[in-house]
Amino acid sequence: MLKMTNDLKALIGLINNRLTEHSYGEQPNELYEPIRYIMSLGGKRLRPVLVLLAYKLFKDDHETILDQALAVEVFHNFTLMHDDIMDDAPLRRGKQTVHEKWDSSTAILSGDVMLVRAYDLLLDAPGDLRVIIKAFNECAAGVCEGQQFDMNFETMSSVTEEDYINMIRLKTAVLLGFSLQFGAMLAGASEASTKALYKFGVDIGIGFQLKDDLLDVYADQEKFGKQVGGDIISNKKTFLLLKALELANKEQKTQLTQWIDKKEFDSAEKVEAVTAIYDQIGIKELTLGKMNEYFNKGFESLDKIEVAEERKTGLKSFAQYLIERDK
Amino acid sequence: MLKMTNDLKALIGLINNRLTEHSYGEQPNELYEPIRYIMSLGGKRLRPVLVLLAYKLFKDDHETILDQALAVEVFHNFTLMHDDIMDDAPLRRGKQTVHEKWDSSTAILSGDVMLVRAYDLLLDAPGDLRVIIKAFNECAAGVCEGQQFDMNFETMSSVTEEDYINMIRLKTAVLLGFSLQFGAMLAGASEASTKALYKFGVDIGIGFQLKDDLLDVYADQEKFGKQVGGDIISNKKTFLLLKALELANKEQKTQLTQWIDKKEFDSAEKVEAVTAIYDQIGIKELTLGKMNEYFNKGFESLDKIEVAEERKTGLKSFAQYLIERDK
Repeated sequence: MLKMTNDLKALIGLINNRLTEHSYGEQPNELYEPIRYIMSLGGKRLRPVLVLLAYKLFKDDHETILDQALAVEVFHNFTLMHDDIMDDAPLRRGKQTVHEKWDSSTAILSGDVMLVRAYDLLLDAPGDLRVIIKAFNECAAGVCEGQQFDMNFETMSSVTEEDYINMIRLKTAVLLGFSLQFGAMLAGASEASTKALYKFGVDIGIGFQLKDDLLDVYADQEKFGKQVGGDIISNKKTFLLLKALELANKEQKTQLTQWIDKKEFDSAEKVEAVTAIYDQIGIKELTLGKMNEYFNKGFESLDKIEVAEERKTGLKSFAQYLIERDK
Repeated sequence: MLKMTNDLKALIGLINNRLTEHSYGEQPNELYEPIRYIMSLGGKRLRPVLVLLAYKLFKDDHETILDQALAVEVFHNFTLMHDDIMDDAPLRRGKQTVHEKWDSSTAILSGDVMLVRAYDLLLDAPGDLRVIIKAFNECAAGVCEGQQFDMNFETMSSVTEEDYINMIRLKTAVLLGFSLQFGAMLAGASEASTKALYKFGVDIGIGFQLKDDLLDVYADQEKFGKQVGGDIISNKKTFLLLKALELANKEQKTQLTQWIDKKEFDSAEKVEAVTAIYDQIGIKELTLGKMNEYFNKGFESLDKIEVAEERKTGLKSFAQYLIERDK
């Protein structure tokens, strides 16, 4: 696997340092402690890194926009805190979720105040605050829409490829797009560059989520952090499953539907059987193809940005790192 | 009871018309339908009316700031949607709450997007957007803090008067204060006037909540919409209860504590007994006194605002209407 460069590690270090110093509020402690908790669980800090990398395409004083980079990380963790309640998830990054450690009311209310604090972090942004918050709002509403579409899919008998791509675009990709767009806005980049960076982020984000779906089935268990086949066991409507349902012949469709409907089953047996059907249909190649289509589209947008090629190295190598991850 | 003036009714009509026209978003319908639902349940539209009345102290073209007035109503209804989940409330304005009509996940997520839409409505405000959003954020975080303090009080054995007033200041009063402050900001009023209006709103708001506590016990059942004594039945830590616990002699305190601890009781009997203890201690007069203290402080702030007295008529008569309500 591709290693993270020292430059990237330095940016993550900057963000983590600033996060440690940042105060979300003090009293009542019951409201603010869960925020400090979820923000301390770590993670790759992918989104604020994207803000900084986009800014660094154009300007070198990225230390001046650290608070704005934090805004997207605080927003992202707000969505995680609320999504975990809706998904009834017990764990987040291997630790208890907020609604498990405290309760749902605490997770709702702490999440709400996190969203307010994300807006607070936007306020000292250089540039036109109205334009920035308008873009942020569009992204934030989109993320909520994506989560709702994802919940709707759970009870739908069939989901089209188009609907699925639209869902992951909203739920995952628009925030990556906004992070890059925001970095460009903060640097005072041209509208063309800002738009191209947004497109780059959205396309890479869709590819990124397709890779997630793919790894869940085809990852090397020794390198993968979670159980391979988790999505198969829970009948999650991933790109792989919906394409398999679309392309299966009559016999394959019957088998697939039987596995989906089974209430009692051996997990390993189900994962093996469903994976075998995916293999027959060629789902792996098909998903890889779709994923690369989005990654390639993304890089085309990046090529169009008119800055010296050497300035793009950081962003390119980070995108490459995301693409080649195997867990 | 004091009647609402025709001028006030006209302002409420303006707000309701604009609310009907306003679009929060379309797809997915599951996300936006609950917003249209809760916004259609009505209510006095108190907060946007305060925005307009404060603006009208200084300027006459209040039709130009209707969207900004809606922002505080959308924000207020967002807090109701989430509070109803936390309080497990079945009804809101006599209709099913959102989490009852749909489910908790829907109420969480629709609420989240409502908060984003409230920020959207602020964006075209005349004046310094940074200052406006900073004040809005401070208010929004305060409302969350107030709700958390209120939840904390449920499991605390004693709550001081100071802590209680601070809780209702945050949970209820700061949003009334912000609504007035915001109207003044939108009109480009002086900082002194803006601050005085904020103080007026906060003090009136605290008095308003004390009146709520009082009416719950001492309202005329025929005029009161809800069951008189509801707070007594549920042991809600109101100003009346905490002052009674503070001022009761040994025997009264024993009686009060017995009623609070009883798991099985006749509701009418409990209401009568606890009200009798309140009467012995003089809780009604004490609460009335505290309430009038805040109302008077509020009107002192209003007096200090340097605009022609006749411009203050609308705001004064609305405050008077709120003070003299008997339901």
